[in-house]
Amino acid sequence: MNAKKRILSGMRPTGPLHLGNFHGALANWIAMQDEFECFFFIADWHALTSDYEDTSSIAGYVEQMVIDWLSVGLSPEKCTLFVQSKVPEHAELYLLLSMITPVPWLERNPTYKDQMVQLKNKDLSTFGFLGYPVLQAADIIIYKARGVPVGIDQVPHVEITREIARRFNNLYGEVFPEPEAILTETPKILGLDRRKMSKSYHNAIYLADSPPDVRRKVMQMITDPQRKRRNDPGDPEICNVFSFHKMYSDKQVIENCARQCQSAEIGCVECKQLMCEGLLRTLEPIHAKQQYYRQNPELVKQIIEQGSSKARKVARQTMDQVRRAIRIDY
Amino acid sequence: MNAKKRILSGMRPTGPLHLGNFHGALANWIAMQDEFECFFFIADWHALTSDYEDTSSIAGYVEQMVIDWLSVGLSPEKCTLFVQSKVPEHAELYLLLSMITPVPWLERNPTYKDQMVQLKNKDLSTFGFLGYPVLQAADIIIYKARGVPVGIDQVPHVEITREIARRFNNLYGEVFPEPEAILTETPKILGLDRRKMSKSYHNAIYLADSPPDVRRKVMQMITDPQRKRRNDPGDPEICNVFSFHKMYSDKQVIENCARQCQSAEIGCVECKQLMCEGLLRTLEPIHAKQQYYRQNPELVKQIIEQGSSKARKVARQTMDQVRRAIRIDY
Repeated sequence: MNAKKRILSGMRPTGPLHLGNFHGALANWIAMQDEFECFFFIADWHALTSDYEDTSSIAGYVEQMVIDWLSVGLSPEKCTLFVQSKVPEHAELYLLLSMITPVPWLERNPTYKDQMVQLKNKDLSTFGFLGYPVLQAADIIIYKARGVPVGIDQVPHVEITREIARRFNNLYGEVFPEPEAILTETPKILGLDRRKMSKSYHNAIYLADSPPDVRRKVMQMITDPQRKRRNDPGDPEICNVFSFHKMYSDKQVIENCARQCQSAEIGCVECKQLMCEGLLRTLEPIHAKQQYYRQNPELVKQIIEQGSSKARKVARQTMDQVRRAIRIDY
Repeated sequence: MNAKKRILSGMRPTGPLHLGNFHGALANWIAMQDEFECFFFIADWHALTSDYEDTSSIAGYVEQMVIDWLSVGLSPEKCTLFVQSKVPEHAELYLLLSMITPVPWLERNPTYKDQMVQLKNKDLSTFGFLGYPVLQAADIIIYKARGVPVGIDQVPHVEITREIARRFNNLYGEVFPEPEAILTETPKILGLDRRKMSKSYHNAIYLADSPPDVRRKVMQMITDPQRKRRNDPGDPEICNVFSFHKMYSDKQVIENCARQCQSAEIGCVECKQLMCEGLLRTLEPIHAKQQYYRQNPELVKQIIEQGSSKARKVARQTMDQVRRAIRIDY
């Protein structure tokens, strides 16, 4: 028996991971590895909800995601790292939960409405897209996870999961604990253009970007928009580069840059160069590990196979209970 | 290689089988056993679409259905008889097909609208009920069935299946043949009250009804409603008992009853008794087999396990192709 509280979270393999993903989720996961029994999974089936029309990149992103996870410090010895489609029991539970989930619960899901608007270049009027909170619910409760580390935008999904679990328990008897959203303060990472860092905005710095690419991108970063000329004084508090300094630079560099920006002693180019050094220092060990795992694809595969088979064992136990509870076990 | 054309059909285990099911579907299946490679399955997951609130009877109905199938003459040596939930690959394909199926295709499904009205005592606003044509599509195409023997009311479902298969092939490459509905003329079986024979109308004669029950029910049958008194002449062509005569009585009895009804030489009670003899003669060998299988539940289970494992082998092969086609096979 594992006395640690079990948590579960996942990511959709729809692109390479960037600094926003790292600070928004991964850093948090890494911090949780010792305290919790962690299940982290790559939601390849979920990637189909938005990318079903072109699936050519999914498998590659899956591999890259495992490599990035391992490279930032998620440890297969501490957590169960797996790929959703390697645990087909998720699909069976999705089917069974779909039978008890009212359509209006899904239609009122705010992310559903949101994404329909945001991704209007994709045809998202599919049955699977409408039902992806049902699949998420299956993903979570099949492991009887107690906690789900999520961003604030995902809280409604955890709420639907709780409602679905409750409905199942009411109809068929107590099988599932109701999971709770675990919200953690995370630094807000803006992209090069000061919008939210996102693959679709083309404003992201990726964990796999080479040092020259990182330098080039940092040089494109929009700083304090009020500071138009080199000898205008700047305001670090509204400068995105300064937010990066706070994450990647030494205390001394941070203080100097703030002061010298406000007095126009330092220009944005020089300030960016200083920040870039800190950022590259942070990325260096990650890059080294990425290279190691890229050269050992069989090892990566093996880690995922082992994690997935460990996850599957748990999922199968739950499904045995589920079938007995629903009483379709002729 | 099996050169016979593969067909597939299924039934929902929501009640015991009656004469309407027998003449409407089973008799047809039995006739097809030699000509086609037949897959017949018990759709226990589909039973959840309408019966998710009370699942206590499903497993019992599954067993009874297998027994009835075997007793009327479906042969496990000729066909693959299996239970849907024993082939969990159906759920995985359901999930994948749900990603490419537009919600409007499901909303315009005539059976969906119909059942919503007909079963208004049940809450059918669930995601699973909306999506049951997707599950049916998965059931059919996972075996690459070419033909689906169905009643006329099921033709729209086969049409949706064809559309989903076509969409899959267009997106990911040719994997699935488009199945065709096989419509067969079947005698129209009315219930005791002259409405369509149906479990929910409580007007059915079941394959498992004992001879006394059959006699009692036959005596309740509504005959020619115009023939109010014993010495009124009757019209066999509008009499439901006469329809039964045509299925169960000898040529001589049929002719005599028609003539003597029209001339009021015979009363409805006597006419029913004659018909009942023929009906019971038809049921007798079925009852004997039912008794045999009921006394050998392990044999019944074994037949289903073997059929399901045979079906699963085919389903797994298809799913390997499907995963390669969608390219989520990291």
